[in-house]
Amino acid sequence: MTPYHTTTAHLCINSERLRDDFEQVSAIGQTPDRGVCRLALSMEDLEARAWFANRIEEAGFLVRDDDAGNLSGVLLSSSPRARTLLIGSHLDTVPNAGRYDGALGIVAALECLRTISEAGIRLPNHLEVIDFTDDEGTWMPMFGSMSLTGRLNPSFMKGANGQAALFRAALAQAGIHPEDVLNARRDPATVLGYIEMHIEQGWRLERGQIEIGVVTGIVARMSYSLTFHGQATHAGTASMRERHDALQGAARFITRAHELVREHYPEGALNCTGLEVRPGTLTTVPGEARLLVEWRHTSQALLDEMERGLLALAQECAAAANVTVETRRLAHIPAAQMSPVVIDAIERACKIVGVTHTRMASYASHNAQVMSAFTPTGMLFIPSLNGISHNPDEFSRWEDVVKGTNVLLHAIIELASNG
Amino acid sequence: MTPYHTTTAHLCINSERLRDDFEQVSAIGQTPDRGVCRLALSMEDLEARAWFANRIEEAGFLVRDDDAGNLSGVLLSSSPRARTLLIGSHLDTVPNAGRYDGALGIVAALECLRTISEAGIRLPNHLEVIDFTDDEGTWMPMFGSMSLTGRLNPSFMKGANGQAALFRAALAQAGIHPEDVLNARRDPATVLGYIEMHIEQGWRLERGQIEIGVVTGIVARMSYSLTFHGQATHAGTASMRERHDALQGAARFITRAHELVREHYPEGALNCTGLEVRPGTLTTVPGEARLLVEWRHTSQALLDEMERGLLALAQECAAAANVTVETRRLAHIPAAQMSPVVIDAIERACKIVGVTHTRMASYASHNAQVMSAFTPTGMLFIPSLNGISHNPDEFSRWEDVVKGTNVLLHAIIELASNG
Repeated sequence: MTPYHTTTAHLCINSERLRDDFEQVSAIGQTPDRGVCRLALSMEDLEARAWFANRIEEAGFLVRDDDAGNLSGVLLSSSPRARTLLIGSHLDTVPNAGRYDGALGIVAALECLRTISEAGIRLPNHLEVIDFTDDEGTWMPMFGSMSLTGRLNPSFMKGANGQAALFRAALAQAGIHPEDVLNARRDPATVLGYIEMHIEQGWRLERGQIEIGVVTGIVARMSYSLTFHGQATHAGTASMRERHDALQGAARFITRAHELVREHYPEGALNCTGLEVRPGTLTTVPGEARLLVEWRHTSQALLDEMERGLLALAQECAAAANVTVETRRLAHIPAAQMSPVVIDAIERACKIVGVTHTRMASYASHNAQVMSAFTPTGMLFIPSLNGISHNPDEFSRWEDVVKGTNVLLHAIIELASNG
Repeated sequence: MTPYHTTTAHLCINSERLRDDFEQVSAIGQTPDRGVCRLALSMEDLEARAWFANRIEEAGFLVRDDDAGNLSGVLLSSSPRARTLLIGSHLDTVPNAGRYDGALGIVAALECLRTISEAGIRLPNHLEVIDFTDDEGTWMPMFGSMSLTGRLNPSFMKGANGQAALFRAALAQAGIHPEDVLNARRDPATVLGYIEMHIEQGWRLERGQIEIGVVTGIVARMSYSLTFHGQATHAGTASMRERHDALQGAARFITRAHELVREHYPEGALNCTGLEVRPGTLTTVPGEARLLVEWRHTSQALLDEMERGLLALAQECAAAANVTVETRRLAHIPAAQMSPVVIDAIERACKIVGVTHTRMASYASHNAQVMSAFTPTGMLFIPSLNGISHNPDEFSRWEDVVKGTNVLLHAIIELASNG
């Protein structure tokens, strides 16, 4: 047993104070159906950041922000050899999102720091709760963690979903200057590790009646745009049998691609979305249909095999509809392994708190994916009701939130006590 | 033989003058790939109308416009009992259209009036070439002919594709006041008939090597919006087998509906288009997919049977994807029969000009569909290359244009000589 166990094993976070913070942040960008919309760098996102900075100051921590807009609250250690344990998540959301994704991790981390500070626990490392800019990719997925880890290159503005001018304006509104963003890079020698609590966004914990998921790795992800090119013609006069209908090619692919993944890649996940048809008028056979496709797998080899299979299927479906297809890779995020040190710390914290846990892969991307190549990284999941996420109906039971935050607390104490 | 045959049988239109007009109007709203875009009431449409008014005046005809923006050139008869033979089409287009659809019928009709006027032929009825407002339905399909025939009701603005304020602004820009539109209604007793020349927009004439299509009727049309409702959730974490993916429902319908119509309704035509997915972001399973569907048939009974079959299929596809579907009828345009008097006049004109012809149904809608319930109406088609229409590649051979215009000329002379 390390010394802190004797003094901190019964330490708990303040559930009411955490709840109060969660309700406050949920009200920022709230939608009529009790969802939230805080697109990165929007007025709602900026309002949530201002609220977070105020909460940090009220708790007596140091407010810190960097040149990529990452916003932190720091509980400084007095040790001259202190490094920083980062505890993160994000306050931005997808459009019409739920309240838990991201924001819960931020308020939980803040509550852990307050609990440690109030208990008078002196740790040999700094603790920093960090809100990463644009996790969800309104402009550029993982922009904040990519900046902090030095993964952005000087021409990063070109990757802004083809909207560099709008991205620049949004950054300017948040006081971020593109020419300074690369300064957000940190020296990995100053960082002790990274830990994040998040909702599972799946139903494995709920169905297994397990209280905590200990993430072992994050799946690899690949995305493509598929543009089916046919021939726009009059919808009344062109024979049904001799058309070049781009939407027919896309529709066949959407159905068959799901069948392919369900049958052959039980551990894989596929999403087809964002379909746009041109022209979209009733009286014209679609000449073009652009589709976004993304797939994920825990195995890099099977991810690559899915790529080959899906691209071949796209060609086959295009040919069957007498159209052609143009394929363009949008992104490839390799799989990430979590650190055994952090995994162990989370599992020991589960024992201290007295909750059940299981190891699992994350099918969602997280800043932990970017951080894992930079510093020892880990994540813990709490159960999501029905696995619903990216939806106003996203929900986690409050008792699970409290258990998860207590696990996070004890994992933080263990990680920051060493090293 | 009626008297005019002895004097006019060898009368021909001026091919070069017609060509010159056609090139001039094609240059208005021209797109980089030699298509045109003259959306109804857009600046390009207004420019084409101004050009047309100038050409009417140059030819010495009376310029007339009504309270629905229909723009005409009138060759007046001196007969006290004269009624008006309307010869029409439209100068507006779909987005990214070809050059022939609509505009060709206008310049051909104008050329016929010039030819008759120059030959000193005195007819007992007025001849009026008319450009109908918004044939293509940028705002409201067949707006001009609906107004002229008194088919609009006082609350017509509510039907403006849900964009009444924009429609009002577009009308105002063209000098049209919604409160006056109903004044465009004409007394059917003043109208002798309606005739229109148009490109076939199909390939039956070209493949049959036939020079003129004599339209016997226009197909019935029905359109729906189908909105598939699923559940937006995270695309990485939600199991592929337990999703409620709205796009899967829509895609299955698009494929199966085409199969249904191809197999069971060889005389029918179906178009699925305008698909919109919400949310369209890569990381979210689509919660909603809205699709536009339209079908046509020469038989009203089979059109209705298609409606029942397609709506049942939509429910079946929704259920197979674990989603629901909401169906809404957008429009129903009944089939229209052309007048035997006008059909006969066109066929006799084909004999005078010496061209082959066949009777056929029109699978495209035209103002003739609206006019047929108001006055004896007919249409003639000229061949379209490869049947391509609503596309910059739309093309008809110039010799076919000239033959068609000569047939129109002689049909006009016969129709206006009688009655």
